[in-house]
Amino acid sequence: MGMQDRETSNLIGSDKVEGTTVYGADRREVGTIERVMIDKRSGQVKYAVLSFGGFLGIGDDYYPLPWQSLRYDERLGGYLTNITEDRLKSAPKYNNESSWNWSDQSESRVNKYYESTFI
Amino acid sequence: MGMQDRETSNLIGSDKVEGTTVYGADRREVGTIERVMIDKRSGQVKYAVLSFGGFLGIGDDYYPLPWQSLRYDERLGGYLTNITEDRLKSAPKYNNESSWNWSDQSESRVNKYYESTFI
Repeated sequence: MGMQDRETSNLIGSDKVEGTTVYGADRREVGTIERVMIDKRSGQVKYAVLSFGGFLGIGDDYYPLPWQSLRYDERLGGYLTNITEDRLKSAPKYNNESSWNWSDQSESRVNKYYESTFI
Repeated sequence: MGMQDRETSNLIGSDKVEGTTVYGADRREVGTIERVMIDKRSGQVKYAVLSFGGFLGIGDDYYPLPWQSLRYDERLGGYLTNITEDRLKSAPKYNNESSWNWSDQSESRVNKYYESTFI
């Protein structure tokens, strides 16, 4: 399958987004995208779930980031976010031990946390 | 990782959409979702790429369907579309031999083809 099936100038395949590296404000690698979360009704991508730390998936922490906080950087070959590592450390997260459900409450926690970062 | 990480009442994970069965107008299985294609600028999911036929991925045909042509059916445990198998047979597609790039022209071909189906 050609690369062009998974990406064009306008579109990107979900399976290409998954696994892509995310770079922080200092352009250092902070993690990779595990999945994107899609609003069922509108089809709008709301969050990218960043996996961060851990080894072979054991002990990974998952950080839902607002999709609009990421922009693709051609030179880095990954997504660039203006979230610093420090800011991520105290961000809403879940992991394999403490599974987190995407209740409305969790969503508003994520949105609130990043609000100040992007406004 | 719990199921609740990949789906809630409002959101669904891209990796959960991938591999989900699609049922046709007659509720017969027509294929599975290979990936979704996301508009880079808006974050809007535009197409679900349906893989159809083939064996172990050899000779699979890929059909980009407008995302709004699918709705999740709890009872079937998959996406239901009102596209008939007959209609799919002549729909725009690509396969491993004839790689198809997502040019604007291809997009408008897909949109045009399904227009009459959903209006």
